[in-house]
Amino acid sequence: MNQEQYVIGKATLAKEASRKMAITDTVIKNKALIAMADALIEKKDIILDANSKDMENGKNKGLSNALLDRLLLDEKRIHSMAEGLRQVAGADDPIGETIKMWKRPNNLQIGQIRVPLGVIGIIYEARPNVTVDAAALCIKSGNAVILRGGSEAINSNTTISKIISAAAENAGLPQGCINFIETTDRDAVNIMMKLNGYIDVLIPRGGAGLINTVVKNATVPVIETGVGNCHIFVDTSADFDNAVDIVINSKTQRPAVCNAMETLLVHKDVAQEFLPKLAKKLNSIGVEMHGCHSTQNIIKNVKPAVEEDWSTEYLDLILAIKVVGSIDEALEHIYKYGTKHSECILTNNYLNSQRFLKEVDAAAVYVNASTRFTDGGEFGFGAEIGISTQKLHARGPMGLKELTTTKYIIYGEGQIRS
Amino acid sequence: MNQEQYVIGKATLAKEASRKMAITDTVIKNKALIAMADALIEKKDIILDANSKDMENGKNKGLSNALLDRLLLDEKRIHSMAEGLRQVAGADDPIGETIKMWKRPNNLQIGQIRVPLGVIGIIYEARPNVTVDAAALCIKSGNAVILRGGSEAINSNTTISKIISAAAENAGLPQGCINFIETTDRDAVNIMMKLNGYIDVLIPRGGAGLINTVVKNATVPVIETGVGNCHIFVDTSADFDNAVDIVINSKTQRPAVCNAMETLLVHKDVAQEFLPKLAKKLNSIGVEMHGCHSTQNIIKNVKPAVEEDWSTEYLDLILAIKVVGSIDEALEHIYKYGTKHSECILTNNYLNSQRFLKEVDAAAVYVNASTRFTDGGEFGFGAEIGISTQKLHARGPMGLKELTTTKYIIYGEGQIRS
Repeated sequence: MNQEQYVIGKATLAKEASRKMAITDTVIKNKALIAMADALIEKKDIILDANSKDMENGKNKGLSNALLDRLLLDEKRIHSMAEGLRQVAGADDPIGETIKMWKRPNNLQIGQIRVPLGVIGIIYEARPNVTVDAAALCIKSGNAVILRGGSEAINSNTTISKIISAAAENAGLPQGCINFIETTDRDAVNIMMKLNGYIDVLIPRGGAGLINTVVKNATVPVIETGVGNCHIFVDTSADFDNAVDIVINSKTQRPAVCNAMETLLVHKDVAQEFLPKLAKKLNSIGVEMHGCHSTQNIIKNVKPAVEEDWSTEYLDLILAIKVVGSIDEALEHIYKYGTKHSECILTNNYLNSQRFLKEVDAAAVYVNASTRFTDGGEFGFGAEIGISTQKLHARGPMGLKELTTTKYIIYGEGQIRS
Repeated sequence: MNQEQYVIGKATLAKEASRKMAITDTVIKNKALIAMADALIEKKDIILDANSKDMENGKNKGLSNALLDRLLLDEKRIHSMAEGLRQVAGADDPIGETIKMWKRPNNLQIGQIRVPLGVIGIIYEARPNVTVDAAALCIKSGNAVILRGGSEAINSNTTISKIISAAAENAGLPQGCINFIETTDRDAVNIMMKLNGYIDVLIPRGGAGLINTVVKNATVPVIETGVGNCHIFVDTSADFDNAVDIVINSKTQRPAVCNAMETLLVHKDVAQEFLPKLAKKLNSIGVEMHGCHSTQNIIKNVKPAVEEDWSTEYLDLILAIKVVGSIDEALEHIYKYGTKHSECILTNNYLNSQRFLKEVDAAAVYVNASTRFTDGGEFGFGAEIGISTQKLHARGPMGLKELTTTKYIIYGEGQIRS
């Protein structure tokens, strides 16, 4: 069997399963999610075995420590995956909600109701917990799912997906509701991207390279996730102590994620006073600074920023700093270099706060809070499948509701159109 | 200047304009829409002149009468375009709506607000009124628009777009808010499809060929519109007189549109009684029937249906008819051949009506009403930009709200993530 037949075989199973998933009761879906959690705990030794093969292969291939850490599973992480499944079981079922219903002058009663998307494809990289998280969210929202994980985690993912799909099917979900592509052949991704008629939406989760490949080549609808070149603008009226805390939190609390800040913009009237306070803290944490001319004149230990710095998502303990003449210059900089993810103003000026909220075009626009809050959990959505940085369908953190679509149902009494 | 420079030039103007459009007051947008309506009436002679050139070229090229009729403008049609603009001016502005706002335990106040998509590209075919309708909806929803019409209407469209964009700009809208691609070179379409970073969404309006080309080749997000292989299932308990009316209305009231019915499914237990009643009416209107074996045995004047009939969107006075053994067989037929547009059951059986509404996966699912109601105007949305047959972002008739996206705004008090 060649790659194409293999992937289409999985997709056919998923498509058939999606019809049944759409009309599966909430009770059964929740029972399945809990059975999946139990199965992970029960079979944790098999999972740890498979994971140790991936870890060994990874070490032999010379993967970085950061990547190896993402790949690693231990008892605690398996328990945390199971806990995630139980949380999704406890969340409200989005399917069947009547969003609105109204009557037309001719007495047609029209309702818009929430239904599953159908078959969701997820293409992701190293972390094996995505296999569980993504499957849980897709199932709870009444979809079937086709998962394609990174080659580094192939043993862990194959084992995990077998365990959870068997548990799901035993608990009453249709065969083929969870499908994992058990091959590291890159052709599988190319085939998935063109499976119109089988896959209703494809969600790439990972680095900019993966996301661009999918956006450029997919013919099935895609939800773009993740790239975040996020800014904080420190206005003249900002509370400096608080501003230092927010900048440090946004940059250093978890630098490798998309909602971490990458460039700091500081109003020229307060740069002289604010930057030294901030630099002290940045230096103590070991954050490398790349600054504009003015920044270099005010604080030491700053590498000269080059044009490329303004558009780089470092995902690391590096911060670009630019002194700007006005809020207008800050807005222009964000317009030019931002990726429409998360942007923040620190200010006590009412008009400036409102202008920033109105004029910045991004998934999340903040006044006086850390950009790190752009997250499904922090927004109160429960689990999250990713953060959409596109404008169609979903924008910002995506929870269960974003994995659904709607349909109109029309109750008639024999009406015809004149 | 080559095609690429030309199209990117237009797109750059549109992108700049979209920033200003997003923060333009409703009053100015409405003033502009009314000025556009006035300008169409005032300059109707210039438009009719341009249109007569298109009509002459069309006749010389041997366009069909149906196509020539779509292309034709007269005083009445120009007045109707102007009236459409006034109606959009009177509609509620979707921009700025707070969809929801909530407080998190840490006191972050998070709001989801409605904002424009940015730059919308519309690729369409013969009818010049789309130039006006699409521009109106895009502007009212705070977007800039790039229009690409069919080559047959190039003179009409160029003239109309110049008139309305001049009127819009004079009334205070930013330069470049309405852009028309004044070339019939097909490369322009290919370039538009790949303008990531300029065009936020591309909406093809027209036949299956155009839509497939855009879906397969675009790297910018697309909203797929239009193809409708719609079914009506006549159940045993249907009211036959009413069923005849609904079938006739769905098939013949305007056969060339996507919400017209293409295949009739009739339950075997009532076929003998129902089909002759219906055939009488179909024959009197001159509808050609392609039927299955059973159909041919019951009524005369029926061509044998071949496999292809079940998947054909005739868009003409032709009807495929199949006798089915049960509601299950009807559901299977619709699943196999339907395009998820509009599907209908005629029944007086409660369980069957609920099952059909639940199990059929389509943009609009009807009980006891004509499929012709799948339309923005008939649903009460005011004007319509098209009917989405995809599941992402918008499904079914798309009005002003479907031309928007959302952003999250977050009011903080210095919160950091722990």
